[in-house]
Amino acid sequence: MRSVQDHLATVLAAAGPVPPLDVVLHDAAGCILAADVLAPVDVPAVPVATRDGYAVAADDTYSAGARGPELPVAHDLHAGSAAGLRHVPGTAVRVASGAPLPRGADAVVPVEETDRGQARVAFQRAARPGQHVRYAGADVRAGEVVLTAGTRLGARQIALAAAIGRGRLPVHPTPRVVLMSVGDELVEPTTAARPGTVFEVDGHALETAVRDAGATPVRVGAVPDEHAALREALEDQLVRADLVVLTGGLSELAHDTVKDVLAPLGTVRLDQVAMTPGTRHGFGTVGALGLDVAEPGGRTVPLFALQGHPVAAQVSFEVFVRPALRAMAGHTELFRPSVAAAATHGWASPPGLRQFVPAMVLGSPDEGYRVTPVGDPAAPSVTALAHANALAVVGEGDLGVEAGTVVHCLVLEG
Amino acid sequence: MRSVQDHLATVLAAAGPVPPLDVVLHDAAGCILAADVLAPVDVPAVPVATRDGYAVAADDTYSAGARGPELPVAHDLHAGSAAGLRHVPGTAVRVASGAPLPRGADAVVPVEETDRGQARVAFQRAARPGQHVRYAGADVRAGEVVLTAGTRLGARQIALAAAIGRGRLPVHPTPRVVLMSVGDELVEPTTAARPGTVFEVDGHALETAVRDAGATPVRVGAVPDEHAALREALEDQLVRADLVVLTGGLSELAHDTVKDVLAPLGTVRLDQVAMTPGTRHGFGTVGALGLDVAEPGGRTVPLFALQGHPVAAQVSFEVFVRPALRAMAGHTELFRPSVAAAATHGWASPPGLRQFVPAMVLGSPDEGYRVTPVGDPAAPSVTALAHANALAVVGEGDLGVEAGTVVHCLVLEG
Repeated sequence: MRSVQDHLATVLAAAGPVPPLDVVLHDAAGCILAADVLAPVDVPAVPVATRDGYAVAADDTYSAGARGPELPVAHDLHAGSAAGLRHVPGTAVRVASGAPLPRGADAVVPVEETDRGQARVAFQRAARPGQHVRYAGADVRAGEVVLTAGTRLGARQIALAAAIGRGRLPVHPTPRVVLMSVGDELVEPTTAARPGTVFEVDGHALETAVRDAGATPVRVGAVPDEHAALREALEDQLVRADLVVLTGGLSELAHDTVKDVLAPLGTVRLDQVAMTPGTRHGFGTVGALGLDVAEPGGRTVPLFALQGHPVAAQVSFEVFVRPALRAMAGHTELFRPSVAAAATHGWASPPGLRQFVPAMVLGSPDEGYRVTPVGDPAAPSVTALAHANALAVVGEGDLGVEAGTVVHCLVLEG
Repeated sequence: MRSVQDHLATVLAAAGPVPPLDVVLHDAAGCILAADVLAPVDVPAVPVATRDGYAVAADDTYSAGARGPELPVAHDLHAGSAAGLRHVPGTAVRVASGAPLPRGADAVVPVEETDRGQARVAFQRAARPGQHVRYAGADVRAGEVVLTAGTRLGARQIALAAAIGRGRLPVHPTPRVVLMSVGDELVEPTTAARPGTVFEVDGHALETAVRDAGATPVRVGAVPDEHAALREALEDQLVRADLVVLTGGLSELAHDTVKDVLAPLGTVRLDQVAMTPGTRHGFGTVGALGLDVAEPGGRTVPLFALQGHPVAAQVSFEVFVRPALRAMAGHTELFRPSVAAAATHGWASPPGLRQFVPAMVLGSPDEGYRVTPVGDPAAPSVTALAHANALAVVGEGDLGVEAGTVVHCLVLEG
């Protein structure tokens, strides 16, 4: 049996970032930037008013009129006005916030500090040079690196890219993940249950889990446990996949369809991994051999084969697939947050296996955390997992947990 | 001027959950469940093996053969086998993990504890009744509430719904948010910059922010600052909107297009809100009057009009629009997490306004948090906001922050 750690190392060695691509801002959002972004222009490009008011040469406002400084109003400028207007000394120009200043003006007097005059305007006090003006390049200087490779592109980074006129950005695209569930017994949950059928759970669960991990799922659904059907489904889907996840078909007493179909397609190894739930694991790459979609020397695609039990499939996704997806998307932080929590009561753990137990973690950094298993730790159910907020992790060498023992917990939400 | 608190109360009073809808699992993922979900069936429906092995009547394994208990093998069952097979006393049936047990069998002996025989099988020890069997209803009993209204549907909850055969779930659908930027000067960031043009930033930034909030953006882009164009764009888009966000066109010196177009359409009020950046705010509902899309007594749609400066628009989104979207999606937790952080140095804040300052918060619950403003707190820029990870909030009554002062910070990421 391989250890969880060794298997994870194998997985992460094969899951490099998806090659960078220039994409429009809409598609770049949520992705990791693949190269530094330089500003091609100053922002703002010209000096602009930061308040609604009157653009003036500050010097002109030192000559006080009857009610304070006063100037004739020469013009109106709003944000869309053509730039390049020249300021006539001794006049004021009405400007909207964001509008370019006429050349020669060096200050803005906010409307609130004036009599809001149309032909002539009176000011409450003289203006300071530079007041309420944002000079060219104040936000960004042309040539400056504004966003560095490795940055996650959220709303605020997309705003900065748009502000410097970048409509496309080089990113690691979100990986496309093809999900197939192998089994003759599987039916869609929209179907009425019949004896001998089992609802297709894994594809639905992993579709959501893939999206939550920031990747793009392609759920194929159930594929019969039959060589031609599985091979054909793989060939159809591989062209659109950055990663393939098969669930089911790994039982020791099953038809070996998964093993047989994958063998000629690449390097997928079927292993026992020292963990529970989900001891049987397939991992490798496919596409280099045998498939029409592979050009000579063409790309290969990592493939996971996970046990079909929904809890095993979901736990294996958390432990191996999710970190791989994060690495493929260019993230450097691959793992869920974890906390150390004191067990509220004990449970047994099988020797030699790392045990993942659906659990409820409560507490806070201040008061500390407590963890309680949800359901039977020896037989974790879909219900228990749905009602848990964490996976409690018991080491391979431990035969169980006693009340009060501090347990390492992967936090699944919150 | 209205306070931030009063304006937020007005917004939240108008932003109720989107009416529930039954949607397929794919669309339900990420949504809030709108009604309790009852299990229509037992899960599992029949007793199933939890390990690959041999189904037996435990009693039969107490008669020891030469190498331990031994039985003839009668049949193979895998997960897809028709249920209803009857167990023949004194025999063993090979079963795959997940397969239904033949009726009459009450235990499974894992293959690892056998000689893996095909015709006859020898066991290392006698079986306990019930071992490695999951009985009908062990996970879920028919009639049981498995998911309660208000639950966020992540992967694990979708798995549970699929497992009980529910292909559709009643949820509060994710709100569709129409985004329009008003201004003649606005051009797409793909265009070369020309004097007098400004890149359309708000729509791109808010499109990403809406998605990050779990809602569905519809970015219209720039609309001319002109009555007919804005009215037409609103009429076109209102039919698909649960919420509309306009940015721009609120300058005191602008053309009043936004004010004029909105006036006959509903209840939108233009107010001064005591905050910076972004003092001018429009909020209300539209659609009840004047628009063809409104049936008699038909639905109204909340509408925000935000200042066009990208920092003002983004801060206003965080403070007002995001909580409204969360409420519309059925969430009860509406606000970003916040931390109290000690200022590393001081800055000034205008009297009477709540100040939101792009800032970097560092630290941990154990060691405490420190906050440093990014850029000039008096003139927050798109760059500063993009490089910040929080908004430091200074109260209306405070004239500034001194080094060491503890400041309330909204955490924008992490």
